[in-house]
Amino acid sequence: MTATATLNLGLALVHAPVINRRGETIGSAVTNLDLHDIARAGKTYGVDTFWVVTPYQEQQELVGQIVGHWTDGHGSKAASDRAHALSIVRICADLEEVIEQAEHQYGRRPLVLATAATPRANPLQYRQVRQRLWAGEPLLLLFGTAWGLAPQALELADASLPPIQGNSEFNHLSVRSAVSIILDRLLALEVEQ
Amino acid sequence: MTATATLNLGLALVHAPVINRRGETIGSAVTNLDLHDIARAGKTYGVDTFWVVTPYQEQQELVGQIVGHWTDGHGSKAASDRAHALSIVRICADLEEVIEQAEHQYGRRPLVLATAATPRANPLQYRQVRQRLWAGEPLLLLFGTAWGLAPQALELADASLPPIQGNSEFNHLSVRSAVSIILDRLLALEVEQ
Repeated sequence: MTATATLNLGLALVHAPVINRRGETIGSAVTNLDLHDIARAGKTYGVDTFWVVTPYQEQQELVGQIVGHWTDGHGSKAASDRAHALSIVRICADLEEVIEQAEHQYGRRPLVLATAATPRANPLQYRQVRQRLWAGEPLLLLFGTAWGLAPQALELADASLPPIQGNSEFNHLSVRSAVSIILDRLLALEVEQ
Repeated sequence: MTATATLNLGLALVHAPVINRRGETIGSAVTNLDLHDIARAGKTYGVDTFWVVTPYQEQQELVGQIVGHWTDGHGSKAASDRAHALSIVRICADLEEVIEQAEHQYGRRPLVLATAATPRANPLQYRQVRQRLWAGEPLLLLFGTAWGLAPQALELADASLPPIQGNSEFNHLSVRSAVSIILDRLLALEVEQ
């Protein structure tokens, strides 16, 4: 029933460089619930690696502590589902390093896809990406925290996914919601629709 | 471009009665981020009312304070997108009252749909619900916090949506992710797919 073995799918949650409300390039703080929600969604949809990208050493240590608590510590006995989900987390200092690690892991450079709340360069439709992914092409999805990926991060992408369009003019999904929706669009078994 | 005016869609986030890990019926605490994430997703997809269901008066007051801060207080100037999102929140003591309010609001009893991580009674496929919703039928979606809706809550539903199936055996999405995915399946404009 599952086709997970044929998928090569990584996901990076970028905390720097991202932009703030005014469009200035910043680094954001790691949010505990981002780790849990995105790891759980990633594990559900067959993501093999969830890179948490932050250049700040104390933030990297915080992520390590949270993940360690649930995967090795007392938390692993209390909630093994959280341990399984967080087992896909890897901490990384910058996006260039993520892409290198992904290339090493998949045996070739993955298609690097940016996501954003407004249209970006080289858009690919969801069904196109879905076909390429299910055909075995390695894929790395980039998500920005705060107000989204900064231009320096967008430049590292090969292409982009169209913004998620609900059916209103309002367009302020949390990154947790955006990751969940995009994974479902790319990976849900169609028989379930 | 939008068809929001023809939709009659409410959503209830139930904090009691729900079940815990052992299947016992409990009441759960309100989570700040549930309010924000689900209100933002709801507003994006054209949900008119997001009922937060808790019988506990102090929890109702907490919800009122959070919503008030962003819609009337200092927060409304700092982040008007949060104010718009949280403007759809309504606090309610129990599900029976939610269904009554929804019936009054929509002019007839809505189709009350339960969601769950395992199959439940009277399943309807997503595309069936989508068709009925877009045809103007009022719909009320029920989501459970903790380990999901208790039997007493499920009994109030007319039908259920199938569990979200990713492509792994792992099935532990957060309620924030589940709401986002289900709204996207029922409401995303198909041209975007």
